[in-house]
Amino acid sequence: MSTSNNALFLEQAVQLLGERAVKTALSDLEPYCVDWRKRFFGKAAAILYPRTTEQVAGVVCLANQHGVALVPQGGNTGLSGGATPDASGTQVILSLSRLQAVRHQDPANKTLTVEAGVTLKQVQELADGMQLLFPLSLGAEGSATIGGNLATNAGGTGVLRYGNARDLCLGVEVVSASGEIWNGLRGLRKDNTGYDLRDLFIGSEGTLGLITAAVLKLFPKPAGVMTALIQVASPRHAFELLQLAQAKCDAALTGFEYMSAESTQVVIDHFPEVARHGAQIIGGILGGNNSMVAERSDSVLMEISHPESESAATSMLETVIGQALDQQIVGDAIVAQSIAQSSALWHLREAITLAAAEDGAQVKLDIALPLSRLVTFIDQVNREMLAAFPGVRLHNFGHFGDGNLHYNIGAPQHLAAGKSVQERRAIYLDYIQTHEEAIRRLVHDRVMAMNGSISAEHGLGQLRKAEAWRLKSPVELALMKRIKQALDPNGILNPGKVL
Amino acid sequence: MSTSNNALFLEQAVQLLGERAVKTALSDLEPYCVDWRKRFFGKAAAILYPRTTEQVAGVVCLANQHGVALVPQGGNTGLSGGATPDASGTQVILSLSRLQAVRHQDPANKTLTVEAGVTLKQVQELADGMQLLFPLSLGAEGSATIGGNLATNAGGTGVLRYGNARDLCLGVEVVSASGEIWNGLRGLRKDNTGYDLRDLFIGSEGTLGLITAAVLKLFPKPAGVMTALIQVASPRHAFELLQLAQAKCDAALTGFEYMSAESTQVVIDHFPEVARHGAQIIGGILGGNNSMVAERSDSVLMEISHPESESAATSMLETVIGQALDQQIVGDAIVAQSIAQSSALWHLREAITLAAAEDGAQVKLDIALPLSRLVTFIDQVNREMLAAFPGVRLHNFGHFGDGNLHYNIGAPQHLAAGKSVQERRAIYLDYIQTHEEAIRRLVHDRVMAMNGSISAEHGLGQLRKAEAWRLKSPVELALMKRIKQALDPNGILNPGKVL
Repeated sequence: MSTSNNALFLEQAVQLLGERAVKTALSDLEPYCVDWRKRFFGKAAAILYPRTTEQVAGVVCLANQHGVALVPQGGNTGLSGGATPDASGTQVILSLSRLQAVRHQDPANKTLTVEAGVTLKQVQELADGMQLLFPLSLGAEGSATIGGNLATNAGGTGVLRYGNARDLCLGVEVVSASGEIWNGLRGLRKDNTGYDLRDLFIGSEGTLGLITAAVLKLFPKPAGVMTALIQVASPRHAFELLQLAQAKCDAALTGFEYMSAESTQVVIDHFPEVARHGAQIIGGILGGNNSMVAERSDSVLMEISHPESESAATSMLETVIGQALDQQIVGDAIVAQSIAQSSALWHLREAITLAAAEDGAQVKLDIALPLSRLVTFIDQVNREMLAAFPGVRLHNFGHFGDGNLHYNIGAPQHLAAGKSVQERRAIYLDYIQTHEEAIRRLVHDRVMAMNGSISAEHGLGQLRKAEAWRLKSPVELALMKRIKQALDPNGILNPGKVL
Repeated sequence: MSTSNNALFLEQAVQLLGERAVKTALSDLEPYCVDWRKRFFGKAAAILYPRTTEQVAGVVCLANQHGVALVPQGGNTGLSGGATPDASGTQVILSLSRLQAVRHQDPANKTLTVEAGVTLKQVQELADGMQLLFPLSLGAEGSATIGGNLATNAGGTGVLRYGNARDLCLGVEVVSASGEIWNGLRGLRKDNTGYDLRDLFIGSEGTLGLITAAVLKLFPKPAGVMTALIQVASPRHAFELLQLAQAKCDAALTGFEYMSAESTQVVIDHFPEVARHGAQIIGGILGGNNSMVAERSDSVLMEISHPESESAATSMLETVIGQALDQQIVGDAIVAQSIAQSSALWHLREAITLAAAEDGAQVKLDIALPLSRLVTFIDQVNREMLAAFPGVRLHNFGHFGDGNLHYNIGAPQHLAAGKSVQERRAIYLDYIQTHEEAIRRLVHDRVMAMNGSISAEHGLGQLRKAEAWRLKSPVELALMKRIKQALDPNGILNPGKVL
């Protein structure tokens, strides 16, 4: 795009949106030119803040006319650089954060229709106000927008029972690459009247069209939700517990998170107060026995949600754990007796990401496998990893029940023995930068050999694009390109992402 | 297509598939040139029976080369004429019924990978053998193939809990219009590595690509399944019962079918022995009180599936019905006490379609609405229908819990009073043929005004294509056409269907 085109586009954008909705000062742009994890730094010509779907359509029309590349952005909390502009300085960020209308609350249909810029947290609260549940839940929910969640088909901890973002959306409104508005805001459980455009736009990371509003699917609130932390001797035991729990609880099993011993160790190392707090609560329950936190052991966080009552949830949880103890699948287990105790258990799980950041650089991978291969994968790849990169720490944890692991690798601890925090971080960073590609390749090659996915819930964005291209079949890539070409022939929507 | 092209294509098809897999005799073709409901009669140049995905790909390559139109067909049980060739006699039926391999049974992943020609019934039985459940269930399951189920995104009675065919499929293998094989047979719960090609092919009725195999999602078998037949005074009461049952049972509510008084009346009229058998069982339970079958009343068939035990299912069902009785939402209710009783109740529901066929011609519609509009829709459209077409019978029934009704209209009974069966059928047929378009328009216009769907689970095929074109937005149709053009530029896959 030439600078003169750019200038004309911005002039017309100001006419369309008003001056205050078009920012070009470096200080206004900077925070939005870097991704959440600070791995991708881009430059932008401007950031635009439309307030309505019609304004979004107007901007896209102009961009098409002038050949301007648009980078759609919501809460800028993506983990793959999908919302960060490239380094050219010619791309324009199109923020959908000000599309904030709640279009329709329909408790009788158990749906909620909101615009793209409403945050996930706000959606959860709106659903709560309707005495219903919106079960999508993830770390960045206070800032992440529903538009971004759908564009990336976000996952999180509720997928086991309720599905991905895709499964929680009945209809979308989309601005096409030609600037037309498609009203697909249907609140229907069944609709077989043509191609599934909705699911094509969901998960396309803003490269095929811009989701401006969505009809979200809500659920009855469970009457009782109960959590337990359960010690398991190995991933194999975690898997056996999962099979048992699914057979006994089916849809009532709403959470099944696995934490390797090394992933909880990093919490103990860096957030001793979180671990201590967990230990106190756990100690309180067990009468002083802190073995679960003190010992290095793999563990599972299991959650049961029961439609009938809290006592039914507790009873179901205790039945499963009782059988697992009888069958010697599990070691110690702690059943939370209150919401506070339950939160403390979840807090241990959620602290892993923060503690790892405190520790220093890591190779972060987001993989999925068929459940039947998961244990073999962990055993084999852990072994190969330690052989190839002696001393690395296997911080793998995650949504075991979905076959989804955050298979993260930390630098060997001994490299930084006796060093200051600053020195340690520099040493770890150097190690990770040196070995990142080889580590990633090792894991991803094994994932593909077992028919898995190299991006279970974080999307491709910029981060995983090259790997996807390396590993996907030419037939699949060709089909994707044909669809991109058909829906965005001028390539103005988020160029350089996904494809 | 010229006849010479056709001849050359068939010659090469014989070389590829062998003589016995290419049939051109009229007697071999006839059964496959008419649809299940005998509404569409076409002609075909040949029917081909490939046995492998590679053979399918070979046929598609040839068809592309010679410009031959292919009509994919599975069990030929579709309800919208989507698998019936046109009248030209130049189209070639591509039967996928001989792709029958069971590729992989993976109980640990709760998946089953089968080829397109395996019947739904066989899939259910294979799952059962794995001690798991494949919950898709519909009338034609003995003949319908899984390929056809996916091509049309079939629905049925289990959607409320388990979703449509789309939701029960984790991955597909597809032969593209250019004759390439895409292996998307992933058995993953999470995979965000590009566009959702799977869902684009599912429900596209063979117009974008041919599904040759699929990874199906299985579920734990519920420990107890219990059914009740419940009398309700009106659709409003059925809706209130649904809301109560969902709040109390959530995922344990696996069936919620509504039957209007007139839809059960047609069973009593034509299958008195089914009604009598139902009445005996019901009488047995209630000690001789047959009011439910004798009285003309709307009713609901409710099914609870509990992961823990049969007694837990019964207890949940009785709790809900007890509360509904207290709140005066429902009248009499009968809880089946055995599988035989439960089957008899379901048989009443399933007999509606057969009894209606016995009765004579009907306008058959397959609509969905947001649940919040369903009651208003029924009340309003019933009233308008009777005003516009006095005396018609409102045989509407169906998957109320999904907002999906088979809103069927029978001819006025008085027109055939005192006539023979043969005369009656002729009179009804004449009435329906005269009024069908006006009746359909009335219903579909109201459906669209309430943001519903004119094809909830049967697809567009040939039957509903014109209506879809009349009612869909130009933006949506344009997007669909662009995708068709991108994936099947020569228009050889099922031309004349959907678009």
